[in-house]
Amino acid sequence: MAAPNKNILNEKPENILPGVSIDCVVFAYHEGQLKILLNKFDALDKWMLPGGFIFRNEDINVAAHRILKSRTGLDNIYLNQFYSYGKANRIKDSDYEEIEKMLKANNINVSGSTKHWLQERFISVAYYAFVEYSKVELSPYDYADKTNWYNVSEIPGDLYSDHNEIIKGAIATIRMQLGYLPIGFELLPEKFTMTDLRNIYETIIGQKLDRRNFQRKMLSSKYIYKQNEMCKRHGVKAATLFSFYKTLAEEASRNGIPFIF
Amino acid sequence: MAAPNKNILNEKPENILPGVSIDCVVFAYHEGQLKILLNKFDALDKWMLPGGFIFRNEDINVAAHRILKSRTGLDNIYLNQFYSYGKANRIKDSDYEEIEKMLKANNINVSGSTKHWLQERFISVAYYAFVEYSKVELSPYDYADKTNWYNVSEIPGDLYSDHNEIIKGAIATIRMQLGYLPIGFELLPEKFTMTDLRNIYETIIGQKLDRRNFQRKMLSSKYIYKQNEMCKRHGVKAATLFSFYKTLAEEASRNGIPFIF
Repeated sequence: MAAPNKNILNEKPENILPGVSIDCVVFAYHEGQLKILLNKFDALDKWMLPGGFIFRNEDINVAAHRILKSRTGLDNIYLNQFYSYGKANRIKDSDYEEIEKMLKANNINVSGSTKHWLQERFISVAYYAFVEYSKVELSPYDYADKTNWYNVSEIPGDLYSDHNEIIKGAIATIRMQLGYLPIGFELLPEKFTMTDLRNIYETIIGQKLDRRNFQRKMLSSKYIYKQNEMCKRHGVKAATLFSFYKTLAEEASRNGIPFIF
Repeated sequence: MAAPNKNILNEKPENILPGVSIDCVVFAYHEGQLKILLNKFDALDKWMLPGGFIFRNEDINVAAHRILKSRTGLDNIYLNQFYSYGKANRIKDSDYEEIEKMLKANNINVSGSTKHWLQERFISVAYYAFVEYSKVELSPYDYADKTNWYNVSEIPGDLYSDHNEIIKGAIATIRMQLGYLPIGFELLPEKFTMTDLRNIYETIIGQKLDRRNFQRKMLSSKYIYKQNEMCKRHGVKAATLFSFYKTLAEEASRNGIPFIF
């Protein structure tokens, strides 16, 4: 089922906004684990965040949606820009060597003083995204060869460039927004167990939370209600199911939970 | 006391990172008002945020500190990057006309097909900063001619480019961080009244807050304590003074107030 492999590396420099790239930390939740999407080129040793470039006449937020659609098949992904990574040396010498290898593997001439636009310094505008795992159709795209979900606790420590730092930044940002956004709403199916929601919070906060306090706090937030239904997946002991109040949670996802004194 | 007027407009394009600028929303508090720093070129009609450009080998966060030092005289300003503004049309045609006027006023040739690097599309990495009003020495710098504080409620509605939107974004970001950062710590002198702190919160939230609830909530945060001293500034009725616990507030300003269940 090979899709036409439009190779962005062959894009002319005059069509690409110079010096700015996009990287996305895409979260999904599946079987008790919060996961992040990574991809890899066969020509490179390192995994990296899904990312891409911006066309000359394109808004950067539009570019982020376009890039993520090409990886996940999803329109209207819930996506928040959170930081622009701009250290002068964020792309290491060894990364530039990898880029050169990849360009050569794609039959692009970069010998001597001939430089490809991808070999310049790049500032990366970083986004985090929440998707529902079951709705994503992973597809190799552009020039990447593999794409895969990794548990947050099992991300390789040697991602390309500063991508480990970008992931840490995304998690720190979401941690800061736990009191402001209804975290979990876009990640979970319509009905979920309190354990699922707590797993997400525990991964973001980086520590175990008390089961009862968590449930009490979540229900007191007014964004979540108990279903009159038990979960049938669990063999031994059935678990209660919960849902977000959809309209309220959508509004809070867009504009934040009001800060009340 | 004319400082040497290093004019960045004469900088060669090969020294400037193309397509990326920095804009800063600098907040200070004075005489009951939360204020923002704006500057203006004589050659232009519009006020704008203090901003600047990044040198080829410079980290963007380092550039932001350099730019703000040149405006305020301050090192180590408390500064947080919050968003990168990247709409393709964020610099309007009328703004480009203004830029051309300014370049011409600086005797820079931009006629016909000769373009200056400043006439390209720019993505702006935006920061907000908190400074203590009394410590700032405003200085005209680079190529700007005037620099001034504006009350948040009195910002001109027709700032250059998307700078009104950037200010709104800064305030929305800080509103989101009210439960996470000890807002007020960098803005207020060592001893302040609860009215001063409440004025800041009210400006950020955009509504009046109950005086007693506010004080109770602030004191219960553990970041603020009551001084054994009254304010002598107020003619009629003396007001109690408060302070932040310095070490705690510094730590929370850097790493956030822990999210506790």
